[in-house]
Amino acid sequence: MSQVPQVETPGVLIDEDIVERNIGAAQAQFNRLGIALRPHIKTHKLVRFAKKQIAAGAVGITCQKTSEAEAFVEAGCRDVLITFNILGEAKLARLRRLSANATVTVVADNATVVQGLSGAFAQAPQPLRVLVECDTGLGRCGVQSPEAAVALARLIARSPGLAFAGLMTYPAPNSHERVEAFMVAAKAGCLAAVGSCETISSGGTPSMRSVPDKTVITEYRPGTYIYNDRSLIARGACTLDDCALAVAATVVSRPTPDRAILDAGSKTLSSDLLGLTGYGLLRDYPDAAIKALSEEHGHVDLSACAARPEVGETVLIIPNHVCVVTNLFDQVHLHRSGRFVETVRVDARGRVF
Amino acid sequence: MSQVPQVETPGVLIDEDIVERNIGAAQAQFNRLGIALRPHIKTHKLVRFAKKQIAAGAVGITCQKTSEAEAFVEAGCRDVLITFNILGEAKLARLRRLSANATVTVVADNATVVQGLSGAFAQAPQPLRVLVECDTGLGRCGVQSPEAAVALARLIARSPGLAFAGLMTYPAPNSHERVEAFMVAAKAGCLAAVGSCETISSGGTPSMRSVPDKTVITEYRPGTYIYNDRSLIARGACTLDDCALAVAATVVSRPTPDRAILDAGSKTLSSDLLGLTGYGLLRDYPDAAIKALSEEHGHVDLSACAARPEVGETVLIIPNHVCVVTNLFDQVHLHRSGRFVETVRVDARGRVF
Repeated sequence: MSQVPQVETPGVLIDEDIVERNIGAAQAQFNRLGIALRPHIKTHKLVRFAKKQIAAGAVGITCQKTSEAEAFVEAGCRDVLITFNILGEAKLARLRRLSANATVTVVADNATVVQGLSGAFAQAPQPLRVLVECDTGLGRCGVQSPEAAVALARLIARSPGLAFAGLMTYPAPNSHERVEAFMVAAKAGCLAAVGSCETISSGGTPSMRSVPDKTVITEYRPGTYIYNDRSLIARGACTLDDCALAVAATVVSRPTPDRAILDAGSKTLSSDLLGLTGYGLLRDYPDAAIKALSEEHGHVDLSACAARPEVGETVLIIPNHVCVVTNLFDQVHLHRSGRFVETVRVDARGRVF
Repeated sequence: MSQVPQVETPGVLIDEDIVERNIGAAQAQFNRLGIALRPHIKTHKLVRFAKKQIAAGAVGITCQKTSEAEAFVEAGCRDVLITFNILGEAKLARLRRLSANATVTVVADNATVVQGLSGAFAQAPQPLRVLVECDTGLGRCGVQSPEAAVALARLIARSPGLAFAGLMTYPAPNSHERVEAFMVAAKAGCLAAVGSCETISSGGTPSMRSVPDKTVITEYRPGTYIYNDRSLIARGACTLDDCALAVAATVVSRPTPDRAILDAGSKTLSSDLLGLTGYGLLRDYPDAAIKALSEEHGHVDLSACAARPEVGETVLIIPNHVCVVTNLFDQVHLHRSGRFVETVRVDARGRVF
């Protein structure tokens, strides 16, 4: 990413060469482990990149929301996991329509969700595949124990219109041992109680490179690895050269020798810190600190910098968290090592419902 | 906002009764002060609300970005201030087109910006109105002293295609005395140096209610006042009853007695904290704490709550910062005290360039 095409700022630049390298490296890793790869599209929200991931060997895609899945199924994706409890008549009707056009798997972590899914699919031509979401330590959604996972699996297995398909978790960082212990126990219980436990799905780019050789996990759902970002550099999960996405911004003001103001604020970079200090890395001014964001201004402290950018200069920002950045843009600019390729619409931008 | 219409979640609900009350109250205040009101549309990004603001007596609108101004000028707004340094051939060409269809005023805080504007407007039929942006203590953009403001006013006044139109600042909270001192000195200098200083523009909802009766300011640019939010309640700038916007979310999981998970995360509420603790106020569960956000999950701590929401229940969230929330949604749902009115597209969503 030493060179990049000129675009109007703020704008999102994505290096397809790096994207393809990241897709290839992850696929090779999981092929070697014998684990199915099901990339999460929440990061890129681009059909073209989902198709690249599938062409490289992914078994299907992961979506977080029903509306994201709609964008990808309409574009031809045929195997979708939605890792979110789906509730309410409107969303269940949309899920039925999706299931008519693709193999759709969903998750549930409570009986209310299971009952809603069953009511919606009782008359469907094919049963809906349901994974039990397990809280293996992150403290978000998920049943709290292997015993609770087995109980919910039993409910799913006896609910009209549903098929128990296995277990799913989003792990806390570096918690493979805990995940393994939870899943081994839950799988054994499910096999005893309902006779099957086909899929055991885990995920997350932060933990991706440390997935052990021997594991009960059958499927992995990383998202951010396709672009990488400043938070993953900080965690040691990638290097700067693995970062495919940068935000191009213009220095619009240098009010004092130590201050630069960029035309990229929280409506461009988001306010996500993910435990970091500052709101992004200036690629060519690594000693600069994006210390605050207004909605449309980035406030940069240059006091530690020897070389300093001038008014009118374009700078490149590696954002803290790429997934929220692409969701703020209607379009992104693709290039290959600096050679402009195409400006494309972000297919599932804003698909939160 | 005791009652609201049912919508798919997460969704943005806006009470037009409260919007109209907020517009009316601000207009009455500034009429009384004899200060022109020029609301900032970055908060709502809706043409229909800009038109309500103008119908109530606003002299025009404020935009932060050229692309925002395009959306509003295309829809018939005829007097627009863009409070951002505009740089680069592409944006200058767009600014020329805008100026052919509306009275456009811009700002500058450095000579590079002035030279670019002059080059673009030297052959234009009408000169472009330019305000000098002044840093009166916020530490963002702006010249650093009244003397520097006068020097830049002089440059603007002698630049082909440009007309010096006055001074502009975005003040630090509760800094009226400092703003006043800066602007009085800068105005006197400009009158002496270039013979005019028509407009002195300040802004911001946090400082709005404390604008003094006697002031050098001729124009005020509040934005957030139209909706209000949790940050403004915390600053004492409004009450909960003044909050026109709420995010409707569904409780999708209750993994433990003390934890609820909502279908609204950082892609719905944004990660903006604005100095607060937690990511929003649950309207009907004020003792609940939205303690963390994933992209699509809100993590709620219920440990301090007597009554607790159940899975499937819709809850209303007053966000920390409304301006970034509306920018995340393609559409918002309008109602009047709970009676559904219309679902409308957010005209200038994502217009960051």
